[in-house]
Amino acid sequence: MSKNKIKVAFQGEIGAYSEEAAFKFWKDQIETIPYKSLTDVFEIVEKGKADYGIVPVENSLEGSIGQTYDLLLKSKLKISGETTLRIEHCLIANPDIKINQVKRVYSHPQALGQCRKFLEKFNWEIIPTYDTAGSVKMLKEKKLKDSAAIASQRAAQIYNMEILKKGIERNIKNFTRFFIIAKKDWENPTGSDKTSIIFTTKHKPGALYKALGIFAVSDINLTKLESRPIIGKPWQYNFYLDFLGHRKEKPIREALEILKQNTLFLKILGSYPKAKESF
Amino acid sequence: MSKNKIKVAFQGEIGAYSEEAAFKFWKDQIETIPYKSLTDVFEIVEKGKADYGIVPVENSLEGSIGQTYDLLLKSKLKISGETTLRIEHCLIANPDIKINQVKRVYSHPQALGQCRKFLEKFNWEIIPTYDTAGSVKMLKEKKLKDSAAIASQRAAQIYNMEILKKGIERNIKNFTRFFIIAKKDWENPTGSDKTSIIFTTKHKPGALYKALGIFAVSDINLTKLESRPIIGKPWQYNFYLDFLGHRKEKPIREALEILKQNTLFLKILGSYPKAKESF
Repeated sequence: MSKNKIKVAFQGEIGAYSEEAAFKFWKDQIETIPYKSLTDVFEIVEKGKADYGIVPVENSLEGSIGQTYDLLLKSKLKISGETTLRIEHCLIANPDIKINQVKRVYSHPQALGQCRKFLEKFNWEIIPTYDTAGSVKMLKEKKLKDSAAIASQRAAQIYNMEILKKGIERNIKNFTRFFIIAKKDWENPTGSDKTSIIFTTKHKPGALYKALGIFAVSDINLTKLESRPIIGKPWQYNFYLDFLGHRKEKPIREALEILKQNTLFLKILGSYPKAKESF
Repeated sequence: MSKNKIKVAFQGEIGAYSEEAAFKFWKDQIETIPYKSLTDVFEIVEKGKADYGIVPVENSLEGSIGQTYDLLLKSKLKISGETTLRIEHCLIANPDIKINQVKRVYSHPQALGQCRKFLEKFNWEIIPTYDTAGSVKMLKEKKLKDSAAIASQRAAQIYNMEILKKGIERNIKNFTRFFIIAKKDWENPTGSDKTSIIFTTKHKPGALYKALGIFAVSDINLTKLESRPIIGKPWQYNFYLDFLGHRKEKPIREALEILKQNTLFLKILGSYPKAKESF
């Protein structure tokens, strides 16, 4: 534990994909701290016990992580960065276990979904857990001989476990996008930035169309639109929008000002340098 | 088993919310058949072994069920109806178990999410499963004395189990919307219909804005917009759109024709009578 290192909170056990994404983003200049839930990650950064949090926001096979979106709505934290990670899943077991001894497979529901085609070939009992690396750790601690876990190669190495099969995801274009959350966003434009916002339209026909028109007339490129239910108002939605540009640039600033006047609710989650590999 | 009864496939065990929604939709004129996965439900209807399937599509607290959306993209089945169900969760255990004996809680991840606030008050181990009613059945079969499940009052009754606490969802406005899937949609307009489509926009700025404009100029009311990742094309999305009106009505027919000419891909999932309780 070094006092000089940046502290980064992530959800899962040591060896989780979120931790791997953190090392990719910051190289090795960080101290990573595992937390049980995404809620914990947000709380610990809010309390200043970690400098940053790294949270998964969407996967290119399974889609958005709803809980991250819901936490961004409630939290005062900003998005100060994004990164993407190629997710290559491995089937992992205790040493000397053969694949035909496996009866049960443990992993996070997102990872199980990403490996659905591979899993359908076997008659294994599938057991969803809260974490990929945590499932490997559990197999090791309980010395299970009839079970395997789905997690990263790195998780297998960390816990000294055996890889029964590599690359079991149902499509090799399997990437997860992560947000870096902090008390402040990336305040100054770098020339290649993204901005993320949440808004609620008025209850009128064409309201979403008009909201998107504000961006269209200024040639602002939208990269992601997500809808999430509004709690307590069934069948009404908040829209989460990512677009290219920084909130301090004039066209973006003006578009956001017009949007604010034409929506019931607008929250700017932050501007941040665009990851090279994302759109 | 009556030969005259309509056969309806659902995911989960007897007592699942999907089965309850089916009885609500058809009254008692049906025979319900449980299947392990949503994939199985689609397959069985495709093969003609069931007349209809009933599948959850979104929940007003937790959001969309991604797997249902992904299966609708691949399947030849149509949406021939929708229904909504008020979801009131119960904490359920074997008879004579007290709440302070509980150490573990089993349920479907969606149900666990809907009860997050309640669960956070306790120090229980939370175990995600594939089914709410199935968790109750498992508690009963294994005679577990230190565990509880989250499921419906109906599931507790069916398996003769005890309700420890009722209404543990984090907001009373907890509804799930279901699609009725079949080989054909509801072919003729009733005057109060919805239509569901999937489309992929061209890779140009403003493409989504222009697509929504086709509906806006004809005053067609959009009720839901969902984006799902395109498999094999990271950070590109299919849009799932629900709107008021029937595909055989002139303004809708024309709008869909124009949309087809201006998108890379368009699939009409079907038109069906709008549920009274939905928007």
